[in-house]
Amino acid sequence: MNGCPVMLVGEPWLFAAAFLTAVVVSLVFTGLLISVLRSRGFGQRVRDDGPQTHRVKEGTPTMGGLVFILTSSLVLPLFTRIAPEILLVLGVVLGATALGFADDYLKVALRRPLGLRGRNKLLVQMALGALLGWVAVAFLGREPELAVPFLAGSIPLGAVYPLFTALLFTGTTNAVNLTDGLDGLAAGGTCLAVIVFIVAALARDAVGLAVVGVVLLGACMGFLWHNFHPARVIMGDTGSLALGAALAALAVLTQTELLLLLAGGLFVVETISVIVQVTYFRATGGRRLLRMSPLHHHFELLGWGEVGTVVVLWAFQLACVILALFGLRGMGA
Amino acid sequence: MNGCPVMLVGEPWLFAAAFLTAVVVSLVFTGLLISVLRSRGFGQRVRDDGPQTHRVKEGTPTMGGLVFILTSSLVLPLFTRIAPEILLVLGVVLGATALGFADDYLKVALRRPLGLRGRNKLLVQMALGALLGWVAVAFLGREPELAVPFLAGSIPLGAVYPLFTALLFTGTTNAVNLTDGLDGLAAGGTCLAVIVFIVAALARDAVGLAVVGVVLLGACMGFLWHNFHPARVIMGDTGSLALGAALAALAVLTQTELLLLLAGGLFVVETISVIVQVTYFRATGGRRLLRMSPLHHHFELLGWGEVGTVVVLWAFQLACVILALFGLRGMGA
Repeated sequence: MNGCPVMLVGEPWLFAAAFLTAVVVSLVFTGLLISVLRSRGFGQRVRDDGPQTHRVKEGTPTMGGLVFILTSSLVLPLFTRIAPEILLVLGVVLGATALGFADDYLKVALRRPLGLRGRNKLLVQMALGALLGWVAVAFLGREPELAVPFLAGSIPLGAVYPLFTALLFTGTTNAVNLTDGLDGLAAGGTCLAVIVFIVAALARDAVGLAVVGVVLLGACMGFLWHNFHPARVIMGDTGSLALGAALAALAVLTQTELLLLLAGGLFVVETISVIVQVTYFRATGGRRLLRMSPLHHHFELLGWGEVGTVVVLWAFQLACVILALFGLRGMGA
Repeated sequence: MNGCPVMLVGEPWLFAAAFLTAVVVSLVFTGLLISVLRSRGFGQRVRDDGPQTHRVKEGTPTMGGLVFILTSSLVLPLFTRIAPEILLVLGVVLGATALGFADDYLKVALRRPLGLRGRNKLLVQMALGALLGWVAVAFLGREPELAVPFLAGSIPLGAVYPLFTALLFTGTTNAVNLTDGLDGLAAGGTCLAVIVFIVAALARDAVGLAVVGVVLLGACMGFLWHNFHPARVIMGDTGSLALGAALAALAVLTQTELLLLLAGGLFVVETISVIVQVTYFRATGGRRLLRMSPLHHHFELLGWGEVGTVVVLWAFQLACVILALFGLRGMGA
């Protein structure tokens, strides 16, 4: 080895190749999906009470989020052995995709404006999240405890752990769903958040999970090309639930559940904005704190413009990701 | 320790605090700088041959890049011991800032449209870069060799090393300078590139250099708030040379010089676009490959809009950073 100045190193090439392949596959698949969805007339219906400038989005093909599970299923087997933990991630993402697809399909194809019942959606999300935690502990040797970012230590949860993952999963999927209201916002926010879990997986030598993260990142970037303003496609609940599911699964399997609050800071803040707005509205008998919730509509109505709002919120999310990377350092990474 | 479930870990808090402090200081300083520069009439002069839509930028305060060295000098001593290597980074950044400031001052305040002579600028850049490499090897125990990303191995340079760092420094500062043509492009590109060197520093347990990276990132993000479209301030050569100098110094001191080609992929591609355009123009006796170089003006003239072009180039830079992070993994990190 000393005679030769250079030697091929397997892993970095593997990651780079998986990432670039996912970008290309996602770019192509999203393009194809747009044609298919358009030809079937699966256009987005825009909320009547949203910002008026969003009316032009009426008719943009939705359910583009199918591309995430399609890209992952095709690209992952090329670059990693499909170990049980990877199957678990794919399983819950597939479940979330199916749930989101059912909701979108009812709304768009069958014109039932409310989609699935909220209670039924929550039940499926809780079940998927509990399944995630239970399988991770029972079959994959995951400790039922939470590592605390920035503080060396952990909180043992024992048998309550699947209940916690149920709440984490439901919270994450719904938070990404709420955030998905401006072109590129949710997909870009996920691109940034997933960096934390790639680094966490690498720090734990979980190469397979790192490849999952890399492929998810590539899939989001390929989609983003078509989804950035003016969007030619919308991910729909199909996509936002899938991305939330993938983030929750990566957090559980890299043992960084609580870090998800920071890594997905954008999603957390958007969710809090809705909760605060509704609570304040009820408590004051009809007064509003924000001009409109979620937060991104408030900024739009302040005159930041759709793209300006998206870029500012991405920058906020990047800052959260940097902080999360430091938090990771205290968690045995 | 086992009795108490949590324990404070110093470092992650340190990084998070340094980052947030730098963001806030930079936000405030940039705001103050805008007032000062505006009151003195230090407005940008826009090239006559650029896109016509850029004429509105005439008069925007330039030399905002002073904020990078100001923020670093104030915030760094609060969060890290000013070790020799940190002094070296600050020294070359200060040198580059002074060079850029002289150039901007001649152009804007004294209305000498061409600024410093190109040859004199290059000489100072080469001298600063050679000094960087020489000090790193002679006083800081840096090996005069280049680690090769993705390939385990290194190229020994011996006494030629300072010549290499001179070229690296000159190339990087001028590349960031070329890239600085659209609102937010260079500052955002640097935000992303610096992530690679923060991770490289952490991987080498060079905590001081990681703090430098974090403070630089915070300074760029604070500046970006004011610099994003429509920009209220422009960094000028003052800023672009400083950012290039900081990246080159971080690459030298974290022993990842060649990785800079990937971590700063945006800057590399913009530079290549200029070289190719000029070469093609001369070889064909007056034909153009791009509508206008650097590359970002070509995209603008294709109708992508200023913000659209910036976001696409940021996404490209993010992809380069992800690839660079994998490359890092093969370099003993």
